[in-house]
Amino acid sequence: MLRLSVPLAEKKLILPTTLYLIPTPIAENTLHTLPAYATAIVRELDVFIVERAKTARHFVKSLLPPIPLQQMTFTEIGEHPPLTEAENTFFEAVKAGKNIGLLSEAGCPGVADPGAAIVALAHREGVKVVPLVGPSSLLLALMASGMNGQRFTFHGYLPAKRPELAKELRRLENLARQNDQTQMFIETPYRAQMVVEVALETLQADTIFGVAQDITGAAENIRSLPVGTWKKQKIAALDKLPAIFLVYRKGG
Amino acid sequence: MLRLSVPLAEKKLILPTTLYLIPTPIAENTLHTLPAYATAIVRELDVFIVERAKTARHFVKSLLPPIPLQQMTFTEIGEHPPLTEAENTFFEAVKAGKNIGLLSEAGCPGVADPGAAIVALAHREGVKVVPLVGPSSLLLALMASGMNGQRFTFHGYLPAKRPELAKELRRLENLARQNDQTQMFIETPYRAQMVVEVALETLQADTIFGVAQDITGAAENIRSLPVGTWKKQKIAALDKLPAIFLVYRKGG
Repeated sequence: MLRLSVPLAEKKLILPTTLYLIPTPIAENTLHTLPAYATAIVRELDVFIVERAKTARHFVKSLLPPIPLQQMTFTEIGEHPPLTEAENTFFEAVKAGKNIGLLSEAGCPGVADPGAAIVALAHREGVKVVPLVGPSSLLLALMASGMNGQRFTFHGYLPAKRPELAKELRRLENLARQNDQTQMFIETPYRAQMVVEVALETLQADTIFGVAQDITGAAENIRSLPVGTWKKQKIAALDKLPAIFLVYRKGG
Repeated sequence: MLRLSVPLAEKKLILPTTLYLIPTPIAENTLHTLPAYATAIVRELDVFIVERAKTARHFVKSLLPPIPLQQMTFTEIGEHPPLTEAENTFFEAVKAGKNIGLLSEAGCPGVADPGAAIVALAHREGVKVVPLVGPSSLLLALMASGMNGQRFTFHGYLPAKRPELAKELRRLENLARQNDQTQMFIETPYRAQMVVEVALETLQADTIFGVAQDITGAAENIRSLPVGTWKKQKIAALDKLPAIFLVYRKGG
């Protein structure tokens, strides 16, 4: 009885916090792409630092957690440092000995997505960081490209305008050859078609060009072919879906 | 009855082949890191192209497949092109309309692991490529590093000897700053301790250095700190476990 009289919060003070990095589905209706051990951990958490609270709540709710969402904390990372609110949530959780879940809109937090600053904070404060397994469009696109997976670079977004994009694509083509490295980048769905057009105009015929759309989703479409082969094919318009692009020329 | 009299093999000729890219656990006893939809697909397959047949058989057996292993094909990729045996298995499966599973020793085939040549072959032959979700030590290490996940490069293995390794680490430190890119590399377990020593001797005090060992495993250990902070800490000897290393300096 004496033990039970100690408030839970105080008992928890001695428990160290773990920051769990939680992947979320990257295509519609694909909760099955998360391993059960990862969703089981999420169901145990009640403090979340997230890219967007609304979708994070929706995701956690879909896992049927044992406590009501109203008793959970969802703090948005915010677009710019110093991240005051998220940092407050982080330190309050550490003080209470509570674990924290970090999640982004889709895919892996901190990889082509916000979250890295919170992970860096955890390392600085000696809080254990545990990444959970789940879908990453970058990793899946690379795996499915047939290009060099021993050496690769991800560049984020390339310039939006055609002439600058063409120039950058030529630079990536040279980097690929010089370093024998797969070059990857991302683009918003509504610009995917333009990227393919510029790439086929710009890159050399024997350079391999890859497009991976709606990975893990119902419209998944992954193609990776020499530019010359792409040009010979009747290319259907790309769907307005998330896309990863890859460029590779054997070199080294 | 007429339909049933058509041999199965012939009926299957009209079914297109899919090449499934199958991740395997990266730490001991971590089958739980694979999502159930991925293992369900593996259980349906009976043709596998693999890095090493012995461990691939062991993995497939652990999923309790409905048909005996003796009735399955496990063909090793082989170290060097022209990959004759694996290509034969590939074309036989395509001819029979059978799906194929591609898997490496641990993690994701084609990413810091063999398999890319088979994926490239599939694209060339118009065979659908479907990557399945599972653990990748590179992706998990990057996610857990708190470094830049919007831009990063993976370099594979760095030189083994200390002076050349130090020189290469200085080059990566410069690349990180110039391109605002996280720099990643891999090393065999027995050389992990040496890499940490050389990195702490070589890199600047405010450069962030990260080590991720035994990711998803019982001895998982992920640390990411400025070199100056690493030096001030009493650093325990690294376990002889698979390790990913990361270097980052803010730049751009």
